[in-house]
Amino acid sequence: MRSDIRKILEQVRDGNVSVDDALLTIKKEPFEDIGYAKVDLHRSIRQGAAEVIYGAGKTPGQIIGIADSMLKNGQKTILITRISAEAAQIVSRNHPLDYRKEARIGIIGEIPEPSGIGTIVVATGGTSDIPVAEEAAVTAEVHGNKVIRLFDVGVAGLHRLLAHTDEIMSASVIIAIAGMEGALASVIGGLADCPVIAVPTSVGYGASFGGVSALLSMLNSCASGVSVVNIDNGFGAGYLASMINHMSVNE
Amino acid sequence: MRSDIRKILEQVRDGNVSVDDALLTIKKEPFEDIGYAKVDLHRSIRQGAAEVIYGAGKTPGQIIGIADSMLKNGQKTILITRISAEAAQIVSRNHPLDYRKEARIGIIGEIPEPSGIGTIVVATGGTSDIPVAEEAAVTAEVHGNKVIRLFDVGVAGLHRLLAHTDEIMSASVIIAIAGMEGALASVIGGLADCPVIAVPTSVGYGASFGGVSALLSMLNSCASGVSVVNIDNGFGAGYLASMINHMSVNE
Amino acid sequence: MRSDIRKILEQVRDGNVSVDDALLTIKKEPFEDIGYAKVDLHRSIRQGAAEVIYGAGKTPGQIIGIADSMLKNGQKTILITRISAEAAQIVSRNHPLDYRKEARIGIIGEIPEPSGIGTIVVATGGTSDIPVAEEAAVTAEVHGNKVIRLFDVGVAGLHRLLAHTDEIMSASVIIAIAGMEGALASVIGGLADCPVIAVPTSVGYGASFGGVSALLSMLNSCASGVSVVNIDNGFGAGYLASMINHMSVNE
Amino acid sequence: MRSDIRKILEQVRDGNVSVDDALLTIKKEPFEDIGYAKVDLHRSIRQGAAEVIYGAGKTPGQIIGIADSMLKNGQKTILITRISAEAAQIVSRNHPLDYRKEARIGIIGEIPEPSGIGTIVVATGGTSDIPVAEEAAVTAEVHGNKVIRLFDVGVAGLHRLLAHTDEIMSASVIIAIAGMEGALASVIGGLADCPVIAVPTSVGYGASFGGVSALLSMLNSCASGVSVVNIDNGFGAGYLASMINHMSVNE
Amino acid sequence: MRSDIRKILEQVRDGNVSVDDALLTIKKEPFEDIGYAKVDLHRSIRQGAAEVIYGAGKTPGQIIGIADSMLKNGQKTILITRISAEAAQIVSRNHPLDYRKEARIGIIGEIPEPSGIGTIVVATGGTSDIPVAEEAAVTAEVHGNKVIRLFDVGVAGLHRLLAHTDEIMSASVIIAIAGMEGALASVIGGLADCPVIAVPTSVGYGASFGGVSALLSMLNSCASGVSVVNIDNGFGAGYLASMINHMSVNE
Amino acid sequence: MRSDIRKILEQVRDGNVSVDDALLTIKKEPFEDIGYAKVDLHRSIRQGAAEVIYGAGKTPGQIIGIADSMLKNGQKTILITRISAEAAQIVSRNHPLDYRKEARIGIIGEIPEPSGIGTIVVATGGTSDIPVAEEAAVTAEVHGNKVIRLFDVGVAGLHRLLAHTDEIMSASVIIAIAGMEGALASVIGGLADCPVIAVPTSVGYGASFGGVSALLSMLNSCASGVSVVNIDNGFGAGYLASMINHMSVNE
Amino acid sequence: MRSDIRKILEQVRDGNVSVDDALLTIKKEPFEDIGYAKVDLHRSIRQGAAEVIYGAGKTPGQIIGIADSMLKNGQKTILITRISAEAAQIVSRNHPLDYRKEARIGIIGEIPEPSGIGTIVVATGGTSDIPVAEEAAVTAEVHGNKVIRLFDVGVAGLHRLLAHTDEIMSASVIIAIAGMEGALASVIGGLADCPVIAVPTSVGYGASFGGVSALLSMLNSCASGVSVVNIDNGFGAGYLASMINHMSVNE
Amino acid sequence: MRSDIRKILEQVRDGNVSVDDALLTIKKEPFEDIGYAKVDLHRSIRQGAAEVIYGAGKTPGQIIGIADSMLKNGQKTILITRISAEAAQIVSRNHPLDYRKEARIGIIGEIPEPSGIGTIVVATGGTSDIPVAEEAAVTAEVHGNKVIRLFDVGVAGLHRLLAHTDEIMSASVIIAIAGMEGALASVIGGLADCPVIAVPTSVGYGASFGGVSALLSMLNSCASGVSVVNIDNGFGAGYLASMINHMSVNE
Repeated sequence: MRSDIRKILEQVRDGNVSVDDALLTIKKEPFEDIGYAKVDLHRSIRQGAAEVIYGAGKTPGQIIGIADSMLKNGQKTILITRISAEAAQIVSRNHPLDYRKEARIGIIGEIPEPSGIGTIVVATGGTSDIPVAEEAAVTAEVHGNKVIRLFDVGVAGLHRLLAHTDEIMSASVIIAIAGMEGALASVIGGLADCPVIAVPTSVGYGASFGGVSALLSMLNSCASGVSVVNIDNGFGAGYLASMINHMSVNE
Repeated sequence: MRSDIRKILEQVRDGNVSVDDALLTIKKEPFEDIGYAKVDLHRSIRQGAAEVIYGAGKTPGQIIGIADSMLKNGQKTILITRISAEAAQIVSRNHPLDYRKEARIGIIGEIPEPSGIGTIVVATGGTSDIPVAEEAAVTAEVHGNKVIRLFDVGVAGLHRLLAHTDEIMSASVIIAIAGMEGALASVIGGLADCPVIAVPTSVGYGASFGGVSALLSMLNSCASGVSVVNIDNGFGAGYLASMINHMSVNE
Repeated sequence: MRSDIRKILEQVRDGNVSVDDALLTIKKEPFEDIGYAKVDLHRSIRQGAAEVIYGAGKTPGQIIGIADSMLKNGQKTILITRISAEAAQIVSRNHPLDYRKEARIGIIGEIPEPSGIGTIVVATGGTSDIPVAEEAAVTAEVHGNKVIRLFDVGVAGLHRLLAHTDEIMSASVIIAIAGMEGALASVIGGLADCPVIAVPTSVGYGASFGGVSALLSMLNSCASGVSVVNIDNGFGAGYLASMINHMSVNE
Repeated sequence: MRSDIRKILEQVRDGNVSVDDALLTIKKEPFEDIGYAKVDLHRSIRQGAAEVIYGAGKTPGQIIGIADSMLKNGQKTILITRISAEAAQIVSRNHPLDYRKEARIGIIGEIPEPSGIGTIVVATGGTSDIPVAEEAAVTAEVHGNKVIRLFDVGVAGLHRLLAHTDEIMSASVIIAIAGMEGALASVIGGLADCPVIAVPTSVGYGASFGGVSALLSMLNSCASGVSVVNIDNGFGAGYLASMINHMSVNE
Repeated sequence: MRSDIRKILEQVRDGNVSVDDALLTIKKEPFEDIGYAKVDLHRSIRQGAAEVIYGAGKTPGQIIGIADSMLKNGQKTILITRISAEAAQIVSRNHPLDYRKEARIGIIGEIPEPSGIGTIVVATGGTSDIPVAEEAAVTAEVHGNKVIRLFDVGVAGLHRLLAHTDEIMSASVIIAIAGMEGALASVIGGLADCPVIAVPTSVGYGASFGGVSALLSMLNSCASGVSVVNIDNGFGAGYLASMINHMSVNE
Repeated sequence: MRSDIRKILEQVRDGNVSVDDALLTIKKEPFEDIGYAKVDLHRSIRQGAAEVIYGAGKTPGQIIGIADSMLKNGQKTILITRISAEAAQIVSRNHPLDYRKEARIGIIGEIPEPSGIGTIVVATGGTSDIPVAEEAAVTAEVHGNKVIRLFDVGVAGLHRLLAHTDEIMSASVIIAIAGMEGALASVIGGLADCPVIAVPTSVGYGASFGGVSALLSMLNSCASGVSVVNIDNGFGAGYLASMINHMSVNE
Repeated sequence: MRSDIRKILEQVRDGNVSVDDALLTIKKEPFEDIGYAKVDLHRSIRQGAAEVIYGAGKTPGQIIGIADSMLKNGQKTILITRISAEAAQIVSRNHPLDYRKEARIGIIGEIPEPSGIGTIVVATGGTSDIPVAEEAAVTAEVHGNKVIRLFDVGVAGLHRLLAHTDEIMSASVIIAIAGMEGALASVIGGLADCPVIAVPTSVGYGASFGGVSALLSMLNSCASGVSVVNIDNGFGAGYLASMINHMSVNE
Repeated sequence: MRSDIRKILEQVRDGNVSVDDALLTIKKEPFEDIGYAKVDLHRSIRQGAAEVIYGAGKTPGQIIGIADSMLKNGQKTILITRISAEAAQIVSRNHPLDYRKEARIGIIGEIPEPSGIGTIVVATGGTSDIPVAEEAAVTAEVHGNKVIRLFDVGVAGLHRLLAHTDEIMSASVIIAIAGMEGALASVIGGLADCPVIAVPTSVGYGASFGGVSALLSMLNSCASGVSVVNIDNGFGAGYLASMINHMSVNE
């Protein structure tokens, strides 16, 4: 399905690979089937970067099994998101685990040196948004980025945000995280010249509707360069920010 | 139903008014029934201020009829909201009408001198919000307020708003009008120390959902002193702003 | 960002302040950064009124830390909203705390004498709305207002409300709090001549949708002078009511 | 399916009716199949009351066809709802039609004398609700009820409603029709001792959401004895009110 | 506010009552203010029927207090809805309480003999709807009605419903209770000639959205004579059914 | 991507096909790229059945272009859905077109003889649902099925539906089409033993919300064997019904 | 109500059955009324297949009672869905129960040999969807189908799905189960030529809204042959899949 | 507010600029106030790139006025989005305008040579999504990017998408545009290693709810690296894609 097809076709042509083996290769290579999951081995091999296990709804046993499969296939760094302290405790018996409680993230292996274009700023509207922000920040760090945290800079006290104009103006990518009215993304989007990834959070009450209000606000942002990920999706924002921050490096 | 009941009761006790007349007075006095509408005559008499006809869904004939009833009962200034240019044309044949096209407002009678505590600032996020803003501004002016208009100061270009910090800081009441993400109310609410009336507008597309996004954003504002009226309800904001701006005068 | 900028510019011109110090002043002054929060010190200094800590989602330790910072900077009265009895217990070990259980509010320092234009009426539709009402009432009291409580005066038994016509007619501001159908705001708005702040509550079941029904009802109120705050936002209503009730005093 | 089955069974047993005819009777009797519609002939025969054609989405030709079928089967009075003036024009060429423009109702045949327990009160919150109210009122009249109309008695001007306390207190059934916040049903429900049928209307703008706000408000009414029909469903309310008003007569 | 006003006015005229006493009477008579609630004493006195305490969100102490006030004022039968077994246990220490666990209803005093026009049928779509059905049925019984229960007659097994055609055809009022798709109301509405009160329930999962699906289905019923109350509102349906079933008796 | 890959691989191995040609074949074969559309040629070749052009949002010119491409590639019968009379007029100048106005469907080529397992019943709740029903029926007919139409058999007049029990009981697949409360699917699902495809329609007003009420009702159907397609999606239902009706034939 | 009516009519005609007995037969035969439930005995007798008890909201005692009634009436295999491990434990004391924990299904009696047209493929997007998938798979197996499970083949790693192209291409019916964005149904629908039953699951967070996002995605699928059942309704999908897979066998 | 503040402060210190002029500069510089709009002049000067006028809701006269202001201030290329053919006609009388009808975009000035990191792929699910895609593509081109268009590659015919694996695998940024079920973003996100910007479109009917279904689907995408902009927001996607594609160039 990828550009490897040409290579396999050439090997078939040259008689180096049989038709059945070629078929097998196409189907079997990119993941390992361990019953309850099909572990993706593709991306890790190609990129050398961290592979991710989405921990929510998986038992510690399943997480260990998937990690085993990844490590066996040469993965060096594994990021486990949405993993509770209890589950992390159990996993850490099998694998040395760097557990970040606030981010609910466990890390197996080393965090690489920052290597991207510039700095990723992770900003939150309030104190309650910090867990989502930490998920984003740690994800970005594990993928080799330098991260600056700007917490509690919500627009209702604009001076708190403006005091950090320098960091905002010089960022490579900004992750704007807010619940309630979610205006942070628009204001930052208006100040900055770089891509802004907006993360609505489920922080709030009443008409915040579990993050819907912030989500709609962010989708309707008049500022250019703003895009949005799912409510509370700190990982997605951190991963995308890293991707953008490594643009020139990758190519 | 008001404090007049005591007066009527005293007249009944003193034999100055019969039971039947008293009953009649209680029921009949405060409005005139002209079939399709029960014209409220109470507020105008008491306050000497402008009376309002909500023009939407009323025929020019009905508007004229209600205005006739009001004028007959001593009303000096009448504000007709949500009236089309065509309807205004017809009404103006019966009554001298000052028609404000952008605000879709017609005014019968004189606009009083500004008399409130201070200035009402009417701010909009964009150019398309101006009709709602004009409805608010003209309503406030007709009720005796000095109004400053700050249009197109949306948060995506924060410097446009900050350039007017002085007007915002010295306002008596601010009406913050915005569609799309509706962040204007929060930012102004964070800058100002006076009551902020937020008006979501139906300006926008896609996930703005006809003003719902701005409405939710404003309801969730973290800034203190912000309250919200219905989508596109410029009149309601202007009326309430005037009420607040006349607080000390009324008492 | 405020009018202090001129002063700073003048000091720079006169050589009394260096460029770097000026930059620092602009950025640093109005809040203290204590890691998990940026404590706003601006408003308190200017107004001499109570400063507020939104307790929801903050640990007792964080609340104590923020209160410490405020007290250190001269704040006399601190209002802690949405704080549980357990958290209040812990906070009270560090600071003398006046805890109001029903309102879930803790108060550090003295409640000032009432000083506003008139009286704030806090009315509820039912018994279950009382916690929100107490949050509004105590907030208003802590900010220096005289408060009258009218509980359980819902419109389904109109005589209960009409028996209090006098209080309603003579109020300076009214906070109308109701769940279910939320009609209380409209009826009070029709009776009163003062600003009415409507607070929908999450009281109800079925199609009340956690307060959405009341919220929509209040936003659609035909009565003039009614504005709305977020569901269950007693604090916001009390704060705004106090702001309005002090209009003439402030200017 | 009805109690006629016993009769048919007895006829089959007695040999008076063949099995095939019995089957045919069960299937064929209660309606006439005219292709695009299956005209219900059951209710009219049994009750002698008016039969109804829901005109929306039917061509004048289809309406005429259905009316023909009804008249042919002995129906005396036919009520055609939601029929435009244009369609009524065409229908009136075939059948003498009493067309009520505001209610968008056409009547074939005579309106019976009022025969119910008491009076049906049809009340509206505003002037714009009148078309729905007329649909309800005319429907009730055509089914033999005395109707009192109370238009424009919305709760934002409570005295307009209270002036009609007598009519409300002495009604047999009340139909409360309102858009916007829909509070009318609750207030009337609290005043009256009879069943109240609430009809939300699509009158309003912004957060009225085409009648949803009024609908939710009415469903959440705290007043006992209130039930709700679909948005703008004047016919349904009028029909049900007639049913209730004829309770003792029917039995 | 009721027709007693004339009587009071006549007493004032005749000097039998002073103005202040008259004012007092108007305001004070119809309810007792016990702080957390304003106990309505009006309806009970006039009707001699059961008075209702909505138990949800009230402490056992508050329920006892309200019951005390009612009994002190001559109320004979009291219906307490939405009261848990635990609360009922506590209340029963002060008052002899007939507790119906499935309906979550407590009854103080005697259940009157059935006195209405005919029979009230309470039908449910499934077994899980029974608690709501019992709330409706017991409410109707306490208000003096004969009730027939038809449980688990949902439309997906139509023969179960059709087997009870006789009860349906001869009912005075029918309460149709269903969750999930809520089609029961339409089918019964098509079979019956009496008023049908539809009660959506929160029974279901997924796209039933806590009763919204059933609610919408019932509001859109094509059958005439169907009206709807709030989700799970068994009490409201039972009360309204009783009201309709006593139509001819009341007048 | 299909099982043809083996064949191509074998040809590459045998030197009969070059690597580049193989790559080309994989990419190029199953569709023709005509700029504004990628015409799918796969299914038609394999199945010999009708190919479909979704006409909505396509110009007559685009439709003609796609049809040309299909015919050129050997397609015998083409079904054009959601095509207006005007567009059909234009298309018919290039291709002989059998246009079914009510279904808004155009057919190029012959309609095959019915060949499925049994009969497909297409039932509607009302007269206004007929256009959707015709879209479903014609689609099924064009794909080689015998169709029985049962229109206007809504559940509010249950006898109309029960009179057709025979057709329902002996159907191979049933398409149940209804707007408003959408109960038809559940009732038919309870009567029949075959798969029932429910199609909600946008017929209705008020709380029908453009078909949402019927959609939810159908999704919540308690009857087994019922599944749902999009609102107004008559084509999808007809296509799926045909697929099911040809189950044993295909294998 | 079924075709048995003719037989009963003939018996009545021939004097073999009395009118009363005939009436009784029609009403009584197809279910047994055991108070809290009306046990359907019809389908089981006719089909000889498994009968189903929906366990949610039923006590173990009620489940045992219903199973007793079914077994007494000759049912051989009973499927109990949505039954907790605890309830299964209790039921297993009365009946030998094959409990499948992940599917939350209990089976009384034997699972028949697979007898359908072909194979039913049950595919899931992720690991968390497995419980719903097992409910579908076991339901299909109990009704006599061969089932292939393809778990964790979500579209975000397309190669995992494409590696199973053979199973997908040769399936008789496919059940596509996914939460989050629900794209699996569309992609499988595009690959396969057989009916695809889409089951949205409540797996996800944030804007997945408990399965609504997946539900909408599946309803809007552009792929032909896709229909949808309720969120998490694995049973419904398995039952319908079996019905389709036995099409030719049944007729 | 930007880093220019230091420069201004230094000039004030050095006496080169007066305090009043400094204040003026801060407030006045970055935009020109032309009454109905505050034209932003900041970004254009700094970046030398195209400036944008959002044409929706602006009269041709207003557009010309804003363009005049931009050109006067040195802007070379202006992009006017959402401008109708009629408005473009009028604008072109004042300024030479390159109007792209399908994209509803007008361009004043030259389109720069492509200068980014790599190629931007713009893919659509169907033919009807092309206008949004053109808005995105032209926006990207005007900002100096090479764009590849892949139209009508929706997931229901997966081979159409897979045939373009090469373009997808080698893209720098991908814009995935789809209505209906919006699955395209997930599938592309799973295939590609670059940032994917998802644009839901309002294309569809029924339960597509004007793009909400696609929006939710995209927000819930399981594929990493996907973020979302507002419904139909082609411009926003094109602008952000250009920003990302110029990451290394900017720094």
